[in-house]
Amino acid sequence: MTSGSAATLTWRLERVHHVGITVSDIEQSIAFYRDMLGMTLLRRRPHIDAGYIARQTGFPGVQLSVASLQSHHGGPSIELAQYLNQQGEPLAAATNQPGSSHLCLVVSDLSRCHADLKTKRVKFKSEPVSITEGPNKGGLVVYLHDPDGYTIELFQPPLSADSGQ
Amino acid sequence: MTSGSAATLTWRLERVHHVGITVSDIEQSIAFYRDMLGMTLLRRRPHIDAGYIARQTGFPGVQLSVASLQSHHGGPSIELAQYLNQQGEPLAAATNQPGSSHLCLVVSDLSRCHADLKTKRVKFKSEPVSITEGPNKGGLVVYLHDPDGYTIELFQPPLSADSGQ
Repeated sequence: MTSGSAATLTWRLERVHHVGITVSDIEQSIAFYRDMLGMTLLRRRPHIDAGYIARQTGFPGVQLSVASLQSHHGGPSIELAQYLNQQGEPLAAATNQPGSSHLCLVVSDLSRCHADLKTKRVKFKSEPVSITEGPNKGGLVVYLHDPDGYTIELFQPPLSADSGQ
Repeated sequence: MTSGSAATLTWRLERVHHVGITVSDIEQSIAFYRDMLGMTLLRRRPHIDAGYIARQTGFPGVQLSVASLQSHHGGPSIELAQYLNQQGEPLAAATNQPGSSHLCLVVSDLSRCHADLKTKRVKFKSEPVSITEGPNKGGLVVYLHDPDGYTIELFQPPLSADSGQ
């Protein structure tokens, strides 16, 4: 038995638990993810200063304000965290930078979603774009920025698609 | 009826589809997420240069190499994308910077996982940390960096926890 196969017997990756997004103003971000995108607020912890968070994050004495949200279908949560102290400089990440990320959410009708969110001054990178090839051909997709510039992808699957990834 | 309530009738947020991570070397990142973390490779598209991707991302003539992975429990996929051209500067994001994000994955035995991955030279921010308060009290958590410095949180829920978020 190699050490690699032995390792696979001793621990196992289970599932995606949450996507964490660091925000500058948690009330503003809750308003965005809950009131504009339609997520449900699962839990709110307005002031955490436990020592284990400092050890985990590497920021001594850190204090966080945290909100967890979820789509009505369940699945992994979105964890918004505002650093109440030890806050770093805002990140202006572009999607072509290695180490950057985006979160893709399925919506039922991207044209109507885009029109609705535009009236609420959400910043889109483009108009909805038709997917012309590949496994999601026939779908629609668009990038937008959350209040801190984090990239959200909204995706309307093609009518013929299964529920896969 | 207000415009807000009308909007909720015309489109609906469904679910998290994927988390996209931009990488500098996709083979290196597939090796990390598949061979070290234990995800399954769902799909590989080694060269995409469709015009719709350029419109979506805002980078003219962009060419991507993409891999989709998933945990064996299903759920949202992890989409690794290497920009074959138009690649930006590497992002060195800290978790305290607004606009940064992390991906949290549940593992079955964090102590063994940490020991295994350390032998494979994975960069952890700390030793596994015991969660001493809050809804996940009794669990274990640790941050690590993927090959491009993106933050992954590994989480072992407390024994008494349900499957919630």
